[in-house]
Amino acid sequence: MMQTLTVGLSDRSYPIHIGTGLLSNAALLAASIPRKRVAIVTNTTIAPLYLSQLQATLREIGVQSVEIILPDGEVYKTGETLNLIYDGLLTHRCERTTPLIALGGGVIGDMTGFAAASFLRGVPFIQIPTTLLSQVDSSVGGKTGINHPLGKNMIGAFYQPKLVLADISTLNTLSDKELSAGLAEVIKYGLIRDLPFLEWLERNIEKLLARDTEALQYAVMRSCQNKAEVVAADERESGERALLNLGHTFGHAIESGMGYGNWLHGEGVAAGTMMAADLSQRMGWISTDDVLRIRDLFLRANLPVVSPDLGIDRYLDYMGLDKKVEGGKLRFVLLKQVGVAALVSDVPLALLQQTLVACCSKGGPGTNWLHEDK
Amino acid sequence: MMQTLTVGLSDRSYPIHIGTGLLSNAALLAASIPRKRVAIVTNTTIAPLYLSQLQATLREIGVQSVEIILPDGEVYKTGETLNLIYDGLLTHRCERTTPLIALGGGVIGDMTGFAAASFLRGVPFIQIPTTLLSQVDSSVGGKTGINHPLGKNMIGAFYQPKLVLADISTLNTLSDKELSAGLAEVIKYGLIRDLPFLEWLERNIEKLLARDTEALQYAVMRSCQNKAEVVAADERESGERALLNLGHTFGHAIESGMGYGNWLHGEGVAAGTMMAADLSQRMGWISTDDVLRIRDLFLRANLPVVSPDLGIDRYLDYMGLDKKVEGGKLRFVLLKQVGVAALVSDVPLALLQQTLVACCSKGGPGTNWLHEDK
Repeated sequence: MMQTLTVGLSDRSYPIHIGTGLLSNAALLAASIPRKRVAIVTNTTIAPLYLSQLQATLREIGVQSVEIILPDGEVYKTGETLNLIYDGLLTHRCERTTPLIALGGGVIGDMTGFAAASFLRGVPFIQIPTTLLSQVDSSVGGKTGINHPLGKNMIGAFYQPKLVLADISTLNTLSDKELSAGLAEVIKYGLIRDLPFLEWLERNIEKLLARDTEALQYAVMRSCQNKAEVVAADERESGERALLNLGHTFGHAIESGMGYGNWLHGEGVAAGTMMAADLSQRMGWISTDDVLRIRDLFLRANLPVVSPDLGIDRYLDYMGLDKKVEGGKLRFVLLKQVGVAALVSDVPLALLQQTLVACCSKGGPGTNWLHEDK
Repeated sequence: MMQTLTVGLSDRSYPIHIGTGLLSNAALLAASIPRKRVAIVTNTTIAPLYLSQLQATLREIGVQSVEIILPDGEVYKTGETLNLIYDGLLTHRCERTTPLIALGGGVIGDMTGFAAASFLRGVPFIQIPTTLLSQVDSSVGGKTGINHPLGKNMIGAFYQPKLVLADISTLNTLSDKELSAGLAEVIKYGLIRDLPFLEWLERNIEKLLARDTEALQYAVMRSCQNKAEVVAADERESGERALLNLGHTFGHAIESGMGYGNWLHGEGVAAGTMMAADLSQRMGWISTDDVLRIRDLFLRANLPVVSPDLGIDRYLDYMGLDKKVEGGKLRFVLLKQVGVAALVSDVPLALLQQTLVACCSKGGPGTNWLHEDK
């Protein structure tokens, strides 16, 4: 069974198809490929698994494909790797009308999207996400980019794809660790704006970990629905879209501080969300029980809830460079209640410091929160 | 006297102010700088001439400026130099609301514009062009980008500035060679869509070369008027905007073939426009007298009319990589008559080869055209 959503952005609206076996569905691709040539960007992990299947489907509709195979990992989300894409496109004489297909996870999608945004000042772009994290988050909404040694996703563009194909079948080859990392973003939607979905996740998290196809498809569909609604309302993140960054200011600091690629993005988001929850509780909005409820779900999803001890100064430094800085003030996405997020720009530094101490200490945040609350 | 035009792009419309002494006009800048900080990107040639003047004007309105000073020249329009801009912005902790000001010629404007398009997925951007070429062409219309070893402007974005300040006074420090290079693009507007302006140029070219302020301001204003009309009608070059590329397919081949920076862009455009004129005549649209009329104006403007002998194969190769390729066919902007350009996609290869031979031979195109026409 296939489900289709639409990201509503007037003349740049596009469909998200979610289902099993979509990599073999020639008709879905044919609708978005006007000419007889595409460039597929993928990596050394995904190419042996799915490249020939996609190429065979393209041949059915008479489309030749150029392939550009990159090294795998967040550590390669750099300007140098981006140049490998440009080199491949130019060497193969790709043109303004040649679509780029991103076949892979979030790193491939983000880099290919930025290459599409900037090659010849913009070429068409198709997302075929093969990880849970990219299916539920990064492939939808048009955020593209690369990292800079001084910060994550510092260079990029808002550039929407023409089509997103989320083939649930590809999740069968995902490692358990990456499946869990994807669940961090799934849980996020429940926390920030969809309490019924959070409750569904609390009932079904083990099914998702066991890769029950129906449960996975439901979770991907419901996540994309949430994302599409937010993106349609605020494409360029001038308001509501910022709420999708729950846990990301802290999470990016963790990823940067630990060296890109040592923590998966979803792992950083999980630990970062715990920090946001802790800070929300210190602001007096959610209860300690709420914090423990969130912690419990992350733990059941095999996600980290204790942050690495980078030291307060390094956290502040990494967060100071974050894109969510405005007029020198740190802005945080916090939880007003479980299921309702808000953007807050007047967090007292003292509370932030308490959160940084509590969430990074060796005993783990659970014990420390409880201790410090008294 | 100052004149103001508007580039009409609905919510992204912006003003172009043209006049003398604008670098000292604090009110003009104040309207486009919402906060107390900007980053000025300029080069080692322009910084000693105009940077302190601009910074003093900004201080009048309480705006602090970070400066990023790049090496000067087309040869530095690369990914490496772009990284110097990113590094500077991150080191100085520039934010989403910090405008970038491009102070310099086309290379500075194009690179700064692409940095603004891609830093933090887009920050505000102000153009202060200090060369004739950038005042009449590259600062208006939002084409930004860098070169790639395999082709000019291959990486970039359409990204509109918030404001263009064309200060005619800055043209006094321009070399004669660069003034002439700018005139190539000025003459282009007459050739493609404004015959009365071409006739004005034929009467006033010597005044422009003598840097008569009134004549220069008129030429910049009229050029920007033409550019603004075309950009408003076709921002992303799906149709009419392509006509602005008269001479550019050939010109880019010349620039690439000779090594970036050895021919100024305007020089390549002049020689390239002669090739387009020659080809237009071979297609039977304009007369040999028309070709000689165009040649005469370029010669009076001290611009090259004979193209370098790269050899036919290298020309075809460089042109094959050009962005104006569509479905494997070479498209050319040619002249249907003097003052009227058209996009042509069915040029016989034999005629193109004749043009390449005629325009590159040692005797110069004038003699050869006449010879081959018989």
